[in-house]
Amino acid sequence: MSIPEKTIERLSEYRRTLLASHAQGITHIFSHVLAGIHGITAVQVRRDLMLIGFSSDTKKGYDVEVLIDFISQILDARNVVNIGVIGMGNLGQALTKYFNGQRSKLRIVASFDIDPAKVGHRIDDIPCYDMARFEEQVNELDIKIVILSSPASIASELVVPIINAGIKGVLNFTSMPLNFPKGIVVENYDITTVLEKVAYFVKEAEENN
Amino acid sequence: MSIPEKTIERLSEYRRTLLASHAQGITHIFSHVLAGIHGITAVQVRRDLMLIGFSSDTKKGYDVEVLIDFISQILDARNVVNIGVIGMGNLGQALTKYFNGQRSKLRIVASFDIDPAKVGHRIDDIPCYDMARFEEQVNELDIKIVILSSPASIASELVVPIINAGIKGVLNFTSMPLNFPKGIVVENYDITTVLEKVAYFVKEAEENN
Repeated sequence: MSIPEKTIERLSEYRRTLLASHAQGITHIFSHVLAGIHGITAVQVRRDLMLIGFSSDTKKGYDVEVLIDFISQILDARNVVNIGVIGMGNLGQALTKYFNGQRSKLRIVASFDIDPAKVGHRIDDIPCYDMARFEEQVNELDIKIVILSSPASIASELVVPIINAGIKGVLNFTSMPLNFPKGIVVENYDITTVLEKVAYFVKEAEENN
Repeated sequence: MSIPEKTIERLSEYRRTLLASHAQGITHIFSHVLAGIHGITAVQVRRDLMLIGFSSDTKKGYDVEVLIDFISQILDARNVVNIGVIGMGNLGQALTKYFNGQRSKLRIVASFDIDPAKVGHRIDDIPCYDMARFEEQVNELDIKIVILSSPASIASELVVPIINAGIKGVLNFTSMPLNFPKGIVVENYDITTVLEKVAYFVKEAEENN
């Protein structure tokens, strides 16, 4: 089954809302409520769930727990996926704390840096290794995905080590766009771009007033 | 002129590449080189630039400096836009350091928190105010855009203060999607979603092997 990228994003977002609802003791949710929370139409929600083969015959709306499990079967690998962070500056540390605070099958198990003040220590309870030992540790710890939060200036130097270590997915938070060979999933995720986008649409709205 | 969201994103990305090229002394760049860096086609680059009315008649490729100025005129407001950060935990601090380290017309001028250990201090040279003084400081400092990096659990309580303060744009980094009335631009930017997306496509690639 091939599911479009945008649907995957929305499924991830629905699940987070469903988990929060579940934690509040909510057992059922209507498509239009889910849609309202995410600022989209109920038709879109139903279309997404239809696409993954989820159907609900209840008049009370979707069963929250059942839908969480259903989405999780689509999104998650069977086992926990180990993740490494390259670059433990402010952003790397923030991301580590953020991701590991979530109930998730994705787990940051190691970080990598070149700063002697960090290497050999645990930061937020995650061991920080010397970048020189990257390939070795990736194999040892069975790391499949890396998060890049290094300075943009050295990001392109990381491409070859990442390929050599057999990494399968890269989430690149540096402002340097990176290309990888086929077989390695990469998401270039530049946060400056979103801020500039918000600023542009604010400017546009002001000029049209 | 109405420019699609995706084009705005790419223009922001092109500009960052052009600025980096310029810093390295590169004066001209071909559309296929720019395209290669961003993992897209040269046709896409040319289409984007045509859309904003940029044409190049030189055989040496685009003049880097001229193109930077041209894109900046599209993206940037005439004056510096002041930004506030709500929530100065790890992520808030990382974002502040990251954004203010860039040459940009977007400037973080204040942060807001409720933690007495932070309020009244400067963090990364940015004053941190009590959230209770949000509306007052937004007016005083002419803040137009806010970045939300508070805990997700309190994000929805921030909607009313943000509306009341006259904020025009919101970049929401919490995992709680927020809706705002028309006239306020909002970008819900959940970093868990991108990580889950990368993990999904890694899983897909493995299953198809």
